[in-house]
Amino acid sequence: MALVPMVEYDAAPPAVRAVYDDIRATRKTDYINNFWKVLAHDPAMLARTWANVKEVMGPGAIDPLVKELIYVAVSVTNNCEYCIHTHTAAARAKGMTEAQFRELIAVVALASQTNRIAIGYQIDVDERFREPLA
Amino acid sequence: MALVPMVEYDAAPPAVRAVYDDIRATRKTDYINNFWKVLAHDPAMLARTWANVKEVMGPGAIDPLVKELIYVAVSVTNNCEYCIHTHTAAARAKGMTEAQFRELIAVVALASQTNRIAIGYQIDVDERFREPLA
Amino acid sequence: MALVPMVEYDAAPPAVRAVYDDIRATRKTDYINNFWKVLAHDPAMLARTWANVKEVMGPGAIDPLVKELIYVAVSVTNNCEYCIHTHTAAARAKGMTEAQFRELIAVVALASQTNRIAIGYQIDVDERFREPLA
Amino acid sequence: MALVPMVEYDAAPPAVRAVYDDIRATRKTDYINNFWKVLAHDPAMLARTWANVKEVMGPGAIDPLVKELIYVAVSVTNNCEYCIHTHTAAARAKGMTEAQFRELIAVVALASQTNRIAIGYQIDVDERFREPLA
Amino acid sequence: MALVPMVEYDAAPPAVRAVYDDIRATRKTDYINNFWKVLAHDPAMLARTWANVKEVMGPGAIDPLVKELIYVAVSVTNNCEYCIHTHTAAARAKGMTEAQFRELIAVVALASQTNRIAIGYQIDVDERFREPLA
Amino acid sequence: MALVPMVEYDAAPPAVRAVYDDIRATRKTDYINNFWKVLAHDPAMLARTWANVKEVMGPGAIDPLVKELIYVAVSVTNNCEYCIHTHTAAARAKGMTEAQFRELIAVVALASQTNRIAIGYQIDVDERFREPLA
Repeated sequence: MALVPMVEYDAAPPAVRAVYDDIRATRKTDYINNFWKVLAHDPAMLARTWANVKEVMGPGAIDPLVKELIYVAVSVTNNCEYCIHTHTAAARAKGMTEAQFRELIAVVALASQTNRIAIGYQIDVDERFREPLA
Repeated sequence: MALVPMVEYDAAPPAVRAVYDDIRATRKTDYINNFWKVLAHDPAMLARTWANVKEVMGPGAIDPLVKELIYVAVSVTNNCEYCIHTHTAAARAKGMTEAQFRELIAVVALASQTNRIAIGYQIDVDERFREPLA
Repeated sequence: MALVPMVEYDAAPPAVRAVYDDIRATRKTDYINNFWKVLAHDPAMLARTWANVKEVMGPGAIDPLVKELIYVAVSVTNNCEYCIHTHTAAARAKGMTEAQFRELIAVVALASQTNRIAIGYQIDVDERFREPLA
Repeated sequence: MALVPMVEYDAAPPAVRAVYDDIRATRKTDYINNFWKVLAHDPAMLARTWANVKEVMGPGAIDPLVKELIYVAVSVTNNCEYCIHTHTAAARAKGMTEAQFRELIAVVALASQTNRIAIGYQIDVDERFREPLA
Repeated sequence: MALVPMVEYDAAPPAVRAVYDDIRATRKTDYINNFWKVLAHDPAMLARTWANVKEVMGPGAIDPLVKELIYVAVSVTNNCEYCIHTHTAAARAKGMTEAQFRELIAVVALASQTNRIAIGYQIDVDERFREPLA
Repeated sequence: MALVPMVEYDAAPPAVRAVYDDIRATRKTDYINNFWKVLAHDPAMLARTWANVKEVMGPGAIDPLVKELIYVAVSVTNNCEYCIHTHTAAARAKGMTEAQFRELIAVVALASQTNRIAIGYQIDVDERFREPLA
């Protein structure tokens, strides 16, 4: 059980309701994830975190589905059970196929493997890969 | 400096040369990364790891550039300096724009932030996100 | 379920009882956490680990409550469910308010976010921050 | 060297200069850390990240120096060289003594040790520590 | 519950059955772990991963039991509940005594402690430990 | 450069010299690693940490070389450059062959790969692996 109770819509102060309303409108769903209901104890953090999520995950240079794949990859690497479940669901809702999900896990596993090899042997970065973009 | 010296092509045994040749042919470049030159001390591991990389990063359900973005995301999360440099270079070579690179870092940072919030509060996974795909 | 059974006081050998007694006296409670009951299988490790905890978490240059906040921050970052629960409880027992708990999680989340940005871009340490204290 | 070049004040667009100015005013220093100069390539992310830092690290329920100690603890656990250097410097600037720094490292090391023990034995959370605050 | 359902032997395609058969023959047991049943959705990844496990964990320069101890140590450090359980069982099956298990956890905890100290103080590698093997 | 200067033998207080002397006698070398010279600023932590290392790494149920291999495996997984260098050197001094080193890295890489797969798919622990030792 979470270390703080959840704040339901009806019991929420106006500042929290405003964020809940925006989440619902943006995501086109009535459902508010447990994540936001727990964060609601700290209305400033709720507003700030939602603003971050909305801005970063909104339209940009990378396709929305691809961003979700990256989100899942980071969540697996950080071992966040909550985030793996919710962002896998979000990725599926945005069109991730089962074949893509399997390939995503394969890439995460491969990178984790080669990361450890590079670290284990303390391999030097090749000179040609050290240059910043002009 | 790496914990083992690198094996150059001219000093490599036939099994290692065969992998080097395949890397060159597959990647259409003469350059062999330090990673492979260090792994070459263990020809079986070199062959196995290259086969893994070739199979996972080759054509599949996810776009090759997207796979590189995921690879970079995992490498950043695992804090592998070597892999961050080489796979950022690989992603750029495959067409990653600077705007995409910045957005990638933003998503990785956002996920790391929300991962810690979910873990810190020990937030329960919503029932609706617990179901496996039918 | 833990990978080894717990050792209860009545079934414990003298060396283990001595540590349990010291934990009870130091913490002014009869309750012995599962952590110690599992460690009791290895009396030398139990004694050593308790001595470490007692020494490090005892009076020193940093306030006891602050040390608990740091302990929780590390446990969240290491993703240790057991330690998050027990040290959050310990921090609350030492006076952590709910507002402080929320702010603690906010700092942990912020640091995790900026850590990934610095690592992702491989930002060089500013010269002025490289110098050790005189 | 960082994967993107730094943006100096004189070459910065107005939106970036505004953030730089606010950093200088808030921190009462002319110096802009490399972190911000690299982020400046993404003015929206620069503004968002600085707003986060300013809000979370500003006055609140936890003492500013304590927040820096927590920041350092998380950065050590995440192994972020850049952040360890800059936030240790920030903590010293806010009054952290050398004795406190040593004790901070001792707490981080202790928590990392007990975290691994709890995870290694898969110790069950005691029932009494599972309850959320009323 | 896993994010994808498990593939049982009777419902498995020939390529998956072949791997299951090889696992059974190699491990001299009829039991197939959940790990493989989940991986079976991706027959190529199942075959590749099993080939990796079979090759790396098979006869070599390090004793099979010692390899399992290392496997458990990494799984504890990566905080993989599934892998901690299955590889602790595998190590016990290969002869790990309870005294060895306790000592393994002690070494993992010690290393995690000293790792954080070295990182926290940003201790420089001694010149004499920087040289690769001739 | 380390965040605190090193304490050399001639400038060390008696309590620190006593630990240095014990390290030299135990390890049969005059050389004191940077690790201990940095820790020496905190004589209590120096004494405590050395006592831990001496006890855990001394004679026990697991062979001394195997303990070093485990130490290196954890250090690679935690990405501690300092510890990877010093404990690889220690393992070599205790007889680790180059073939064993390569196999060690292969096991660490394999475990990191399968850890991520188990976490990524959120695979349930098989009932039979959940039971503690009788």
